[in-house]
Amino acid sequence: MSEFWSPAVHELTPYVPGEQPRERLIKLNTNENPYPPAPGVETALREFPADHLRLYPDPESRALREALAREFGVEVEQVFVGNGSDEVLALAFQAFFCHGQPLQMPAITYSFYPVYCQLYGIERQALALDDQWRIDLDAFDGNGSGVIFANPNAPTAHGHSQADIARLLRRVTERVVLVDEAYVDFGGESAIPLVADYPNLLVTGTFSKSRSLAGLRLGYALGSRELIEGLERVKDSFNSYPIDSLASALAIASLEDREHFDACRERIITTRERTRQRLAALGFEVLPSQANFVLVRHPEHDAAQLFVGLRERGILVRHFNTEALRDFLRISIGTDDEMDSLIEVFELLCR
Amino acid sequence: MSEFWSPAVHELTPYVPGEQPRERLIKLNTNENPYPPAPGVETALREFPADHLRLYPDPESRALREALAREFGVEVEQVFVGNGSDEVLALAFQAFFCHGQPLQMPAITYSFYPVYCQLYGIERQALALDDQWRIDLDAFDGNGSGVIFANPNAPTAHGHSQADIARLLRRVTERVVLVDEAYVDFGGESAIPLVADYPNLLVTGTFSKSRSLAGLRLGYALGSRELIEGLERVKDSFNSYPIDSLASALAIASLEDREHFDACRERIITTRERTRQRLAALGFEVLPSQANFVLVRHPEHDAAQLFVGLRERGILVRHFNTEALRDFLRISIGTDDEMDSLIEVFELLCR
Repeated sequence: MSEFWSPAVHELTPYVPGEQPRERLIKLNTNENPYPPAPGVETALREFPADHLRLYPDPESRALREALAREFGVEVEQVFVGNGSDEVLALAFQAFFCHGQPLQMPAITYSFYPVYCQLYGIERQALALDDQWRIDLDAFDGNGSGVIFANPNAPTAHGHSQADIARLLRRVTERVVLVDEAYVDFGGESAIPLVADYPNLLVTGTFSKSRSLAGLRLGYALGSRELIEGLERVKDSFNSYPIDSLASALAIASLEDREHFDACRERIITTRERTRQRLAALGFEVLPSQANFVLVRHPEHDAAQLFVGLRERGILVRHFNTEALRDFLRISIGTDDEMDSLIEVFELLCR
Repeated sequence: MSEFWSPAVHELTPYVPGEQPRERLIKLNTNENPYPPAPGVETALREFPADHLRLYPDPESRALREALAREFGVEVEQVFVGNGSDEVLALAFQAFFCHGQPLQMPAITYSFYPVYCQLYGIERQALALDDQWRIDLDAFDGNGSGVIFANPNAPTAHGHSQADIARLLRRVTERVVLVDEAYVDFGGESAIPLVADYPNLLVTGTFSKSRSLAGLRLGYALGSRELIEGLERVKDSFNSYPIDSLASALAIASLEDREHFDACRERIITTRERTRQRLAALGFEVLPSQANFVLVRHPEHDAAQLFVGLRERGILVRHFNTEALRDFLRISIGTDDEMDSLIEVFELLCR
């Protein structure tokens, strides 16, 4: 605490990301992709002219936005890009959710949302999940500053269908509905096609998971032109050039390789289902997953103790020390070999 | 304007960066460095393992902060890094200047500061420059939410000495004094040594100018541990990982090459002084400069017309259309060849 800080800074409880260990561990704690980015990314990296770095990037990130517009079949004016989808989300909270009313979100969801609420002084209305750990979309009535949820949700891994989200959008029309699709490429159903019909729908996505580019910090939002313009106004009052030239070139190279993208996510889905079966065979309750992670709990073993046991044997998973989640572990899907190692340790720990 | 935007978004007047033209022009409008980054940057670019991009960066950017701590002789806990110094500045406004009192700044300075004031709802107290276009440091009394100025100032290019700033800091002790040193490496005197004695001094810097890495988006702040902790709290409530792994590796490589750094800035200083003389010979009033740009006006020629005449002949400079600056052009210092071309066109235009 410091007399020099703005008063609100004293109240902040920052988001705590998963550990980035310096030692060599099997890292199943931050939902990274176990496979490398598309080979074209490496080529772009090797060929990028270093001299070009002396110039500022295009403040509009036009080339990257055009590539995303082609990928998703929207206009370039419907695409916003940011320094990771966390930045995109932060700017969206400021652009759309500061109406002096509470923001509706699931009680269990990405734990950065409540942090943004605190940062921008937005009240939060947390809505309970249903008895199968699914978001209850019917609970969102839109009588607040907006609606936000992750789909598939994190860390519960359940995804709603496009039809479910369309039903929500027919009801909530006055405020922005933000659907965070960080994990959609692992079996979820994207709401992006609905952007054409619902001017209040904002869909965010990331290059960090399905495109194996967490290290580059690239996220995006798709929506109506008026929503994108709102984001741009805030962005241009914060940082004119959030996307560096090199990251932009590499992201574009990644978008050009559909085959690699599909192959990686299919491998992850196959490994996930195989892992789910093996965990169930060890007695775990494994929630269904449309993401690149699974949320599991064991009726006889304490999650915090399992976390420590795994850590001691070189495997890092995520344990959230909150009342709702303390019985669970969130396990990212790695390679088959990594998941074999995980199962081996669990066989020891859950004997 | 949109009903979906947060009300404050309607009031924002975003910062307008200098044009990044798509055609080939002599670009003297955004104070970029005409020389490439250190050769080690290219090596780091070629050798960076693409596979590493699948992992999140270190959220604490420890390696880069350690390299900066070594460079400036401070502790790593006294170093903050951000996605360009614009991001660092934005986070600093939020962390230190939201006290419900006006922020003191020069009437003419980096035009992003008033934009940040608007974004965070901070009132601004603009203090007139003296009759030689220098910041009047004595006018800052610290009876507000803080003090901010660029040193050397932009776009006026004058720099105050470290002793001048120490004098200010002996007077203003209750609020943060932020000295933005984006341009200090071209002949200015840094306030960084004062950080050890003044816990309310924050000094920001950038890799964009003297290190030829504008395309990478890297900035930093140095200050007491309590100021850096304040910045970290806001950063961790906004974006856990603002610095990508690749940019971090390249920035570290840049810091390792003192010789290249010194050679480039010396060349720029030499070219600047040569350019100042030649512009003066053409009848321009050229303000003294400790930056990599000069601010000039001609008693007989309209700046807006000169801007257009240069543009038509393939040379881009900056013209600010504000009452105080409309008689001036801000001209970045390029290579000798580029400045020769500029002078040639001016010889035509100012005949």
